[in-house]
Formats: sequence, structure tokens, C-alpha cells
Amino acid sequence: MALTAEEEQEIAAARAGGATTLRPTVPALEALLFRAIPVLDHGFIRVVDYLGDDSAVVQAARVSYGRGTRAANEDRGLIRYLMRHRHSTPFEMCEIKYHVKLPIFVARQWIRHRTSNVNEYSARYSVLDREFYIPAPEHLAAQSALNRQGRGAVLEGAEAARVLELLREDAARNYDHYLEMLNEDEEGRPRDPSRLGLARELARMNLTLNTYTQWYWKTDLHNLFHFLSLRADAHAQYEIRAYAEAMLETVRAWVPLCFEAFRDYRLGAATLSAQMLAVVRRMLKGEAVSQEASGLSKREWRELMELLGREG
Amino acid sequence: MALTAEEEQEIAAARAGGATTLRPTVPALEALLFRAIPVLDHGFIRVVDYLGDDSAVVQAARVSYGRGTRAANEDRGLIRYLMRHRHSTPFEMCEIKYHVKLPIFVARQWIRHRTSNVNEYSARYSVLDREFYIPAPEHLAAQSALNRQGRGAVLEGAEAARVLELLREDAARNYDHYLEMLNEDEEGRPRDPSRLGLARELARMNLTLNTYTQWYWKTDLHNLFHFLSLRADAHAQYEIRAYAEAMLETVRAWVPLCFEAFRDYRLGAATLSAQMLAVVRRMLKGEAVSQEASGLSKREWRELMELLGREG
Amino acid sequence: MALTAEEEQEIAAARAGGATTLRPTVPALEALLFRAIPVLDHGFIRVVDYLGDDSAVVQAARVSYGRGTRAANEDRGLIRYLMRHRHSTPFEMCEIKYHVKLPIFVARQWIRHRTSNVNEYSARYSVLDREFYIPAPEHLAAQSALNRQGRGAVLEGAEAARVLELLREDAARNYDHYLEMLNEDEEGRPRDPSRLGLARELARMNLTLNTYTQWYWKTDLHNLFHFLSLRADAHAQYEIRAYAEAMLETVRAWVPLCFEAFRDYRLGAATLSAQMLAVVRRMLKGEAVSQEASGLSKREWRELMELLGREG
Amino acid sequence: MALTAEEEQEIAAARAGGATTLRPTVPALEALLFRAIPVLDHGFIRVVDYLGDDSAVVQAARVSYGRGTRAANEDRGLIRYLMRHRHSTPFEMCEIKYHVKLPIFVARQWIRHRTSNVNEYSARYSVLDREFYIPAPEHLAAQSALNRQGRGAVLEGAEAARVLELLREDAARNYDHYLEMLNEDEEGRPRDPSRLGLARELARMNLTLNTYTQWYWKTDLHNLFHFLSLRADAHAQYEIRAYAEAMLETVRAWVPLCFEAFRDYRLGAATLSAQMLAVVRRMLKGEAVSQEASGLSKREWRELMELLGREG
Repeated sequence: MALTAEEEQEIAAARAGGATTLRPTVPALEALLFRAIPVLDHGFIRVVDYLGDDSAVVQAARVSYGRGTRAANEDRGLIRYLMRHRHSTPFEMCEIKYHVKLPIFVARQWIRHRTSNVNEYSARYSVLDREFYIPAPEHLAAQSALNRQGRGAVLEGAEAARVLELLREDAARNYDHYLEMLNEDEEGRPRDPSRLGLARELARMNLTLNTYTQWYWKTDLHNLFHFLSLRADAHAQYEIRAYAEAMLETVRAWVPLCFEAFRDYRLGAATLSAQMLAVVRRMLKGEAVSQEASGLSKREWRELMELLGREG
Repeated sequence: MALTAEEEQEIAAARAGGATTLRPTVPALEALLFRAIPVLDHGFIRVVDYLGDDSAVVQAARVSYGRGTRAANEDRGLIRYLMRHRHSTPFEMCEIKYHVKLPIFVARQWIRHRTSNVNEYSARYSVLDREFYIPAPEHLAAQSALNRQGRGAVLEGAEAARVLELLREDAARNYDHYLEMLNEDEEGRPRDPSRLGLARELARMNLTLNTYTQWYWKTDLHNLFHFLSLRADAHAQYEIRAYAEAMLETVRAWVPLCFEAFRDYRLGAATLSAQMLAVVRRMLKGEAVSQEASGLSKREWRELMELLGREG
Repeated sequence: MALTAEEEQEIAAARAGGATTLRPTVPALEALLFRAIPVLDHGFIRVVDYLGDDSAVVQAARVSYGRGTRAANEDRGLIRYLMRHRHSTPFEMCEIKYHVKLPIFVARQWIRHRTSNVNEYSARYSVLDREFYIPAPEHLAAQSALNRQGRGAVLEGAEAARVLELLREDAARNYDHYLEMLNEDEEGRPRDPSRLGLARELARMNLTLNTYTQWYWKTDLHNLFHFLSLRADAHAQYEIRAYAEAMLETVRAWVPLCFEAFRDYRLGAATLSAQMLAVVRRMLKGEAVSQEASGLSKREWRELMELLGREG
Repeated sequence: MALTAEEEQEIAAARAGGATTLRPTVPALEALLFRAIPVLDHGFIRVVDYLGDDSAVVQAARVSYGRGTRAANEDRGLIRYLMRHRHSTPFEMCEIKYHVKLPIFVARQWIRHRTSNVNEYSARYSVLDREFYIPAPEHLAAQSALNRQGRGAVLEGAEAARVLELLREDAARNYDHYLEMLNEDEEGRPRDPSRLGLARELARMNLTLNTYTQWYWKTDLHNLFHFLSLRADAHAQYEIRAYAEAMLETVRAWVPLCFEAFRDYRLGAATLSAQMLAVVRRMLKGEAVSQEASGLSKREWRELMELLGREG
């Protein structure tokens, strides 16, 4: 990631400020505020605003439980209870806003999370920067032979080199042609006074899907946890997972009790079907259950054995 | 409105705090923070948290317009442009959280606004307070004879007195019976050790719809403006309009430029249909247009004449 | 439930129709269409329209998986896979619309499900019917001594009789006073020509929360499953659970494969936290794990033992 | 647009079916059902399912107005009233599902409409087809000199030829390299047994933004009208407007009364601010108002004069 000098200055200026507020304030997140956390080769996330903290979740839960419960629960236990039982509305009482720079193909996955607010850099109004995502060699994975959605071994040698060459050359050439169609040079000056230049909203269609874009993205903590549970998961594409993992660190700083509950009851948890639970109960009674006798399909059996840390 | 001594102390304690933050901070709203603004006879609204300010709207709009426009627009003009052209996403970048105490029949209208977060005091867990909304005499309106949804003249004399008597007596009696069914006295102590007491989730069904409830309610500025445009409107029921008007004052303190644009382009604005516009054009050319020749229905014609400040 | 003669006629008329359509059509649901399924003492649900079927879910999933998978999966397996892995968007491709008659306190819980469309009978415009929910004796539960949210033993004898008497009398009296304030008799005729009558939007506040209202409610299958997983659950209040159970039957008729997957992977399933999974693994290896050595709180331990069908 | 033979067969098969239903059915839309309506060079929209009709909107409005209004309004007048006063919930009682084939840069604008359901063809699982959008010569517009977001004159001669050449060559080359990285030929067979082939989820990043994708997209009539009011507007980018205009025809067939009201009160309507209304009132009284004396900014004045069909 290379922030421009202008961007670095803006961050320094924002961090040089400071005002007094009566709002809930989280020093650990203030320490991160505005700072860009690098993701992939040119991307970043940075927290630019937030509302609420662990106590705001507790406060919202308690208005729903009434005054009587104040003494009965302490905050950590209450938050864990809410997470375990999927009482989601108290987590909606916290809100966070990120500034994110990300490749367009990642943005296309990200935007599927609808309960959020977005303002994206517009390539109808403005010219996009010359920045493309090129995977690091260790992320240049082959198609999985087993799983239509997954990645297999890492490409090596001539095949890897050829892929990187194609990705680099095609992105660069298409960007050059983008500027040529716009009739602009790299500094945004007109190239050829005799030409009109293609409309920006049209020229952009020549760019490749690894071109970087950026946006402000704001969501509440419940929906952020839903996003993270899907995108920090091992089945998520590596590139969006890299963003989710950087965001997890900001959530840990912001709402440490909620984060811990999320980690235990969502990230590290597993849902067992009625049939799977029945198998576990039989096993705990000492019965040797086979897949055939389990009532589970082969695929479900394999998933269960993996969860239980057993050989299939 | 009567805050309990405990509530007054909580507000004082919250206002006695104060922390340093790098986040956008609005002194005029900080001055209001946590303070209860009375609404109706026992209700209130109070702002308990917020995120963003006028500049956050501008910042979000500019990422969507790109760097080139920075010099071209000043903030006020840009915000007015966004409001006029219903570019709503930049307004979603601000968020506000209220604590509201309100009668249940008002809560039932309010909750129809779906894009928001709510945690309501739960009468499954807790016992509701003995507080009911009784209209002030000047709001004791008759059914409109013209408009099925509206209010007409104010009731007076014996009829008004009888209505107030019924409302007061029925609410009080039903609340007394609520406690009796719960087998609790006013201090929450068991009344009769030989009885079990009805479950709270059942006993509440005996309460009247003017009983007060309370909730935390959080939304973004765009959706708040939508709420206010419907609920601060002259066609809204007086009781919810009273809440909307109190909220308008908090918005004016929070985001003065957005508030001004909202007032001019939404609250005070009117939408003219294609046919209405055609009529206005003909009138401006000096033509004397009658309802019959206008192509408008009688109802639309009446609405248009009212907008233009003319006799029908 | 007592449908009016007029309602019975409307249902008969609607069922007497029939048109030819190219849309996916489900005979088992057509057989239920428009018919009222009784719930509680005066309520009902009835399906009034639907869009999509099991195949629509499969079709949507396959566009997301591409043509290659067509042969590989059969429909049932694919639907179960989607449900197990919480791939929710294909279930959003089906939509259903209900007409529901329900007590106001149930409507207040129901409306918290925001991703749906609602048109409720308006007591601003119209006069509500004289119908109240009075629990059957076997549902007249005491407050649970253990669980603030739950019900305990059923009330009996004099206490039960007194509760029923209060509920009946208070609802009836308040309704009588509602009509009196409106200056209307039971047939909607003015009572006293010398009085104006209170506005409907005000008079309604005197009604009790067990008064019946009605609405059209439309949602997609994913959000319906979310509603049902919360409201058909044993922790839901009995009165809303009665509605959820009636709706489950309509879902079973409509999308039998989705229903079966929902029953196995959601209704009958359980989520185990990372720590709970670790305990199960230790137990399966033959270790005798105690609560103290488990790393679980007492409450979590109790929940886990219950899931595993063991003594705590 | 070129449907594959397989797709043509599927449409014919779907249209050869037909079942009896009790649901509201619209013959004019049945006639269009499943048929692809061409948009741009390779795209299409087609209606694949629907729920509700004009009467469903009326029915929903009437439950909210109560029985008393049945006689008072006829359907057309009621629908126009709802549209004029932005009573949006009755329109949410209709739902429609489209299958759409569209360039990725159009999909990126479209997906910003969040209140809808989407299942998109997944390039993680499947290989995209070799189809790109190349603008027709008459849509090859220059950047507007006046409006940062708009299009100006049409490019001609050598400049136009060069743009088309670049767009065609770059898209084709990048697609060739996409297949090369996948190690697949056009028929999906492995090319070189010694190579692994790059994962699909990675290879797609080399494609250009004018590559076609496809999805199922489902929404309710209120949100569809919101989409169409923004995307069928003259300020929308031509390419998405072409889709919106094709959809307008399907809406006209489906709900003719709602369509007409939408056209009059939304598409052809204009919102006048409080200040603009004041200017119109002064003009109607015969006053000659200038921009300077109007209280409007130059930009607002220009907008108002355009609406009134006057010289600025």
C-alpha cells in the first residue's frame, strides 16, 4: 500500500485534532483512528468514525430486560448470553465507519451485504488511479480438484510466472488505453486538443476487475459480525478474507467483550443438525456408530467427523 | 414528564464525564446530549449518541464525486444539491441514537419505519410503570367530518369532561388490575403469598394503548429525514408529530446545513405531477385555466390551488 | 375464530375462480389458498398469494453455481446443503403473503421482523371490532420463578377465575367506552346528535392490548424461516408460537424440500461454541469432564448437558 | 442478444406448460413471461415470476383504510392518490422476479439498490462466457464539458474507430488470457495436462468491466418504482437506462393502473422547494421576478426556468 503524500498529511492532520465529547469513547480504538492498515498489495482499511462501545450493548440489552436485572448479570456474562442465544438487536446499537481501498472483484463480493451504507469513488465523475491487485506468489493458487469453489496447490515455476506476466501486462495495457480513450495523460491533462475524449462513464468499462476502487462503508456491529463470520471464514476467498482479518483487529480494540463472545460463539462454533446431535448422543453412550447407520449423508458424516476431530 | 430521581442522577453523571476524541464532534449537540426534552404529558426524547456531522456528508459526497470537485463546490451548496436531487447515500453516513419514552399507540406508528435499530423496554421481563397519556384539553379533537383520517373541532364542555374521565379511569383501573393479576403491589412486592401471580407476558394484555413504553432508537440521517418528513407533516397524528418536532430541534443543533436543506427542499417543498406542471405553465403564459379544462381531478385541482396560494 | 358471513363469502368467491398461469404453481398450497386457519380464540392466518416453489430455490442456487453443477446434485441434496451452510440468498427467491388476524400485543412482537411488507387495518380510519383475546384456561400461566421471561405452573381455582373475569370485564368495558367516546353504537350509527364524537385516532388509545387487529404480511422464504426459527421456538411466548405453528403447516405444503431442510438444520439443530466442541471431543475420547474442568460457565454447562441428553 | 439454443429450448418448454391457479393472474404479463427482451448488444431482461396485480395494491390500501371506504373510491383514483401522497406500503404487496443479462459495470450500479434479492452467476464456480458490451456508434459519447457526470457530443471518425478497436481488442485479449490462465479451451477442456490452471476466483480478475454477467433479481413494486425513477431518468447512464426502459414495458403490462400513476406523479413530476414555490406564486400574481430577486441560486433558477418552460 502506498498512501499518497496528500493522504498521509490528511491523516496526520485528523489525528492532530481532538475534541472533548460526552459520548462513549474507546481509547484503544482512538489510537487506531484514521490510520491505514495495509491489506493486499495496494489496499487498506481504516476506521474513520464509530458510535458506542461494549457498554452500549449492555445498556440496550438492559432496557429490554428491565431494571430488575441490573444486579443479576455482569457485563461480560450478559454479552456472552446475548451472542450465544442470537439476541442480535443490542449489537445493532453500535456503529462503525471504514474507509476501504480494495480491488473491484472484492468490492463485488463485499457489496452483497445489504444492511450497510456505502459511498464509492465514482468512475463516472473521476478518473481511477493506476493501481491493480497482483497476487503475491504464495497466493497464486490452482483451481481445487475437489471443490468447485476452492483453491488447490500453489502454482509454481513457468506457469506462475506466465500468470503474473499476463495479469500485470493486461491490467497495465488496459489502463493505458483507458487514459488514451479519455484523451488524458497521467497528470490529467488533455493529450490531443483535436480529440474530444470518451466519456468517463464509458471509458471505465475497459478496466480489469483487479483495478482498485475505494469507498466509505458504515454498518452496525451485528451486521459487521455477520459480514465477518462469512468473510473471515476459511471458505471465503483469500482476498476478501484479508480485509476481514484486518477488520477483526479493529473490532477487538473497539468492543473487546463483544469480540471475545463473537470469537467463541460464532467464529469457532459449529451448528449440529438434529441428526448430528443424535449421532453424538449415541457415541457418548459408547455406541460405535458408522456412517451407514448414522442417517447422515456421506458429506454430512465427513463434516461431523471433522468437527469432532475424528477419523471418518 | 417526570424523570425519576434515579434517572436525573444518571443524566447528571453522564454529563459530568467527558473524554477526548478524534472523532467529528458537534458542540451544539454535545450541549443537548443525554438531556430529556419533554414531549406530551409524560414522554421525552433525548439524544444519547451520534456519529458524523455536516462535514461527514460532504466527505462522503466527495468520494463519490472524486478529487476534482473539491475546489468547485463549497459545503453548503453541495449539501443543498444533494438534498434537491435526492442523492441520499451521503446522508446515510451520519447516525444518531435516541432514548424515547412514548405511549404504545405512538410506538405502533413509529415502528413502521423499518430502517432503524430498536431496543424496547420488555413487558415480558419487567413490570411497566403507572403512566398513561391523557390528551391536554386543546388536543381533544373530534373526528373530522371531511377527512376520514383527520381531526375536526375540539371537544368542549360535558363531552370533553366525559372523555377525559373515561380515559383516566379506564387506564388507572386496568393498571390496578394488571398489578393485581401479577400479585404485586406498587413497590413490586408480592401481595398475597397464597397466589402464584400471572406471567408478566400475559398480564400486560390488560393495559390500555395509552400506557407509556420506552426504547432506544437509532437510525441514519437519511432515514431520520424520511421519518421527519412524514411525521412532522401536518397530516401526521398530533401525538407523533410532537415527537418529530422535538427531534427537529436536535437535528438543527447537530447538522445545521443538512437541516436547512431539508427544511427548504423537503419539509416546505411540494411535488407537482406532469399534469400540474402543464397547468402552471399555461397559467404563466396568461391563460385562465379552469379545473374542467385542467385535466386534473377536483381533488388534485384543490391541492394545486392550495400550493399556489390561490382561490380554487 | 368466527369469520363473518361476508368474509366466508369472499373466501368462497376467491376459491371459485381460477386462471391459467405459466408461473410455478404448487397444488398442495393452492388447496389451502385463502382458507382461514384458526389461531387462538378469534385469530387466523391465511395464505393469500405466493411466488416460487422448491424449484425456484434450486434454480437460483444453480445460477450461482453455474451450468456445470446441474448433473452433479439433485434438488433435495442441494437444498439441504444450502440450508446447512446458511447460503440464504436462494431462499429469498420465494415470497408468500398472509392475511393475519391477531391480538395487538402479538402484533407488537411480530412487527419487530423488519424485512417484510405490512399493511395493517388502520384504527385512525376505521373502528375496530369488538374482539379480544382471552387465554384458554390451560394457557393461564404463572410467572416462572426461575426464568424472568418464562411461564411457570398454570393458575387454578379462584386465582384463575379472577384473572379471566378481570380480562373479560376490562376489555369489554374499555371497548364500550371506546364506542361511547366515538359517539357510535355497535352498528356504527351516531348515538347522540348533540355530540361531536372523539376522533378515531384518539379514541383507540382506550383499548386494551388484547384487542384484535389484522394485516397483510408478505415476506420471502429466508426471512420467513428466520421468523419461524425464533417464533416457533420453545422460548417464544405461547401466543405468537401458535401463529408460527400454523404457518409451519403452510410452508410444509408450499416448499416441502425446504421445509424438511429447515426442520433438520434449523429447528432441531443446536450451535456449539468452540469451548463446547472441545468438551465433546474430550468426552468422546473417554475423558470424564466435569463442569469445573470444562471451561464452561454453569449456565453453559447446563445447556450443553441438556443438548447431549445427559445429567448435568 | 443471442440466446443459446439451449436457452431458447428452456423458454419454449417453460411456455408450453401452464397450470391452474387461484392466485391473481395477469394475462398481459403471462404473454411476456420467460421471453427475453433484448437490451444492448448481448443483454436481455425477462420476467420469470410475479405476485400480485393492481387489485392487490387496492386490497392492501383498503385494509389500511377500513371497510368504510370501499364504496367511496374506485380503484384508479385510489391508486393515483396513493402514488401522489407517497403512501408506499400498498405497492410493496406486489413482487416481480427478472432474469437479467448485463455488463459488469452496469451490474455495479444496479446492485446499489439494496431492497431486493439477487442471485448472480458466480465466476468463483463457473467460467464466464465470451461476451462483452461494445457501444453502438451512436452511443459513443464524449465527456460532457459542462457536467462532470454527463455525456457530450458523439465521437466520430478516427477517434470513434480507435475507441471501438481498443474496446474490442482489449476485451478479447483479456478473455483469451483468462482461458489460458484457467488452462481451458473454449469448450471447457483442459489445454495442457502438465499445468494446474489458475483458480477461477483468481483468473476472473483479468476480465474487463464490460464482460457480461447474469442474475436473478427480485423486488417489490414500490422498490421497483424507486429503481425506475432513478434509472429511467435522463441523468442515468444510457446503458442502465436501456434496461430500465425495457422493464417499464413489463410494468405497464403487469399493473397498468399503477404504471400510469407512476408515470404521471413520479416520472413526469418535479419537486419544487419552498423558495421555488414562492417564486411561482409571485409570478402568477404578475410580478416579473429575476434570478437576483428570487432568492434562488443560479443553478436552482436555471432548473426552475427549465421546469416552467421559460427562458432563464
